[in-house]
Amino acid sequence: MVMPRRVAIVGTGLIGGSIGLAARRGAVEVVGYDSDTASLEAALQRGAVDDAAESVEDAVGDADLVVLATPVDVTPIVCDRLADVVPAEAAVTDVGSAKEAVVDRGVAAFGPRFVGGHPMAGSERHGIAAAAADLFEGAWWILTPTEEVSHAAYSAVSDLVFSLGARPVALAPSTHDALVARLSHVPQLAASALVDSAAAAGTKEALLGLAGAGFRDVTRIAASDPALWVAIVRANARSVLEGLAGLDSAIADITAMVEEQRWDDLHDFMARARAARLELFAKPTYTGEPVSLTMMIPDRPGVLAEVTTVAGNLGANIEDLRIIHSTEGGRGRLELVIAGEDAAAAVAEALRSRGFRVDRPLVD
Amino acid sequence: MVMPRRVAIVGTGLIGGSIGLAARRGAVEVVGYDSDTASLEAALQRGAVDDAAESVEDAVGDADLVVLATPVDVTPIVCDRLADVVPAEAAVTDVGSAKEAVVDRGVAAFGPRFVGGHPMAGSERHGIAAAAADLFEGAWWILTPTEEVSHAAYSAVSDLVFSLGARPVALAPSTHDALVARLSHVPQLAASALVDSAAAAGTKEALLGLAGAGFRDVTRIAASDPALWVAIVRANARSVLEGLAGLDSAIADITAMVEEQRWDDLHDFMARARAARLELFAKPTYTGEPVSLTMMIPDRPGVLAEVTTVAGNLGANIEDLRIIHSTEGGRGRLELVIAGEDAAAAVAEALRSRGFRVDRPLVD
Repeated sequence: MVMPRRVAIVGTGLIGGSIGLAARRGAVEVVGYDSDTASLEAALQRGAVDDAAESVEDAVGDADLVVLATPVDVTPIVCDRLADVVPAEAAVTDVGSAKEAVVDRGVAAFGPRFVGGHPMAGSERHGIAAAAADLFEGAWWILTPTEEVSHAAYSAVSDLVFSLGARPVALAPSTHDALVARLSHVPQLAASALVDSAAAAGTKEALLGLAGAGFRDVTRIAASDPALWVAIVRANARSVLEGLAGLDSAIADITAMVEEQRWDDLHDFMARARAARLELFAKPTYTGEPVSLTMMIPDRPGVLAEVTTVAGNLGANIEDLRIIHSTEGGRGRLELVIAGEDAAAAVAEALRSRGFRVDRPLVD
Repeated sequence: MVMPRRVAIVGTGLIGGSIGLAARRGAVEVVGYDSDTASLEAALQRGAVDDAAESVEDAVGDADLVVLATPVDVTPIVCDRLADVVPAEAAVTDVGSAKEAVVDRGVAAFGPRFVGGHPMAGSERHGIAAAAADLFEGAWWILTPTEEVSHAAYSAVSDLVFSLGARPVALAPSTHDALVARLSHVPQLAASALVDSAAAAGTKEALLGLAGAGFRDVTRIAASDPALWVAIVRANARSVLEGLAGLDSAIADITAMVEEQRWDDLHDFMARARAARLELFAKPTYTGEPVSLTMMIPDRPGVLAEVTTVAGNLGANIEDLRIIHSTEGGRGRLELVIAGEDAAAAVAEALRSRGFRVDRPLVD
């Protein structure tokens, strides 16, 4: 693992500030910039950055890894602005909760050096005051490499994520967006819809007395910041619309079951959802001792994205990866380190089914 | 407050068992019956009942208050069966989570002696093993008197509820059903729909990594017992369908906002839902010292239901009520005791707007 020498963080709020605090535990220099000078000053005082830059251009000018921790609707604009300013060798990543649109702009600005990212960690609180060095400890951090991603950029971002205590997992940008639409954005909108629909049905006092723990749980997130959520929904509008259509279709199915008094069907539906819910939050199995896999790969774009997203779709955590290019050209050897025996076996099988020849060293 | 001498509890599970445990703290005799003899035996051993009856007819034969704590789909059948067995002076109540259909059958069987009820308390666990004497402490307990309810029956049930530590609040059966559809039954179905829709979108492992605290909260109730919920939905099918239509319409509105990129409208919608959510779980204001209200009422059916549901719609807690019939016939005086000055003032105002002349004694 080769750590960057100098990391630039653009946007020193909750996420950017926490990245700074966590990164500075290692031997890395962190320079920060925020258009809100009070936030930047606070980041400096809290030790989230070594230096507070005067401008965003100053912040990234000498960095070898740039983290765009700006709001998801601002990041594309920052990409455009920094396209010609970030050093030619530096990798660039972001932390937005929707990926396709941002990745398109990131790749347009930075080419193979851009690797989209989304840390699966947060807080009810916002801003630098809520930042914490352990915010990402043990959390998934989705990376969304494209076909053209460079090995060096992917490794640099993935290594940073590891050093923050998180687990980098690669998914295709479109897969990420579809999943977060259904797991986060649509549930958020549904919670608002449920509150709105209930609020119209009775007086506040009667509602209050009848709203139990279930309603409280289901609608807790409806109290979130609307401006933040509109920006997220906007950045992921296409997948949100698909997710809303899926929910609408499920509600139409339920309505038909109740209307037609198909109680057995309703029971089966609820039993299936119950099983899915229990399975979803069952203990993850894909952790454990690191296992090495090696494979010959053709020296063409897209292979790294393919291999890492195959692993990501299985929830496998790639702890390290290296490509050794053949001196004869045309082919190279990829070494992957996967956390856990079960995950390594699943990844090896999935890669073999795609035509890769995967080897693993004998167990010592 | 005149406590019943002998309470019969039909169904000694979580709710029936908890009622027994709480009632037996006072000087009341509790006889129980359950078709599951193991449950009935356990209720006896736990001290939830003084006597375990051999049959449901034996249980109610000598009672002056009968509590039907059977599953919501069984209660109507029990009403039919007990119509000619319950003593002529005994009041009858139930604990079902949907009221219109059950109340219809209860009134058909018991006339003015039937008062529907729904304690707003429960547990993730089921059965007598989970019963607790303090289950209802401080909880609302909805009563759903009909136009023909007798004063004696309403008082007997309301007094029992008080003695269990709960707050009796009257609502019309249809209002109750519409509210619980939107606050409980539809959110339950929506949680199942959200899980089902998400589960179809990716592998378990990828879903697991991306499902955050929000999704966990929103879908927690999707892990509930499907058989229990199908019975509840079935008992409240009409209001559930109305609630599903309301949710469907809200989702259609949201979809249109996203499709048409009306971000300001989406912001306003989410902000309104946020405000409603925060208000809904703000501290209740309708508690406090008891305040007496008195009013002349015409001696006709329906007045008691009207007055108590006016208070219930305002979330006001009627701590006691008495009717003193005029010796001259035709009119009587109703005395209400309301918890809290604000609530009493709101109830008095609402009753006056309906043409009642409400007095209150001078403050001591």
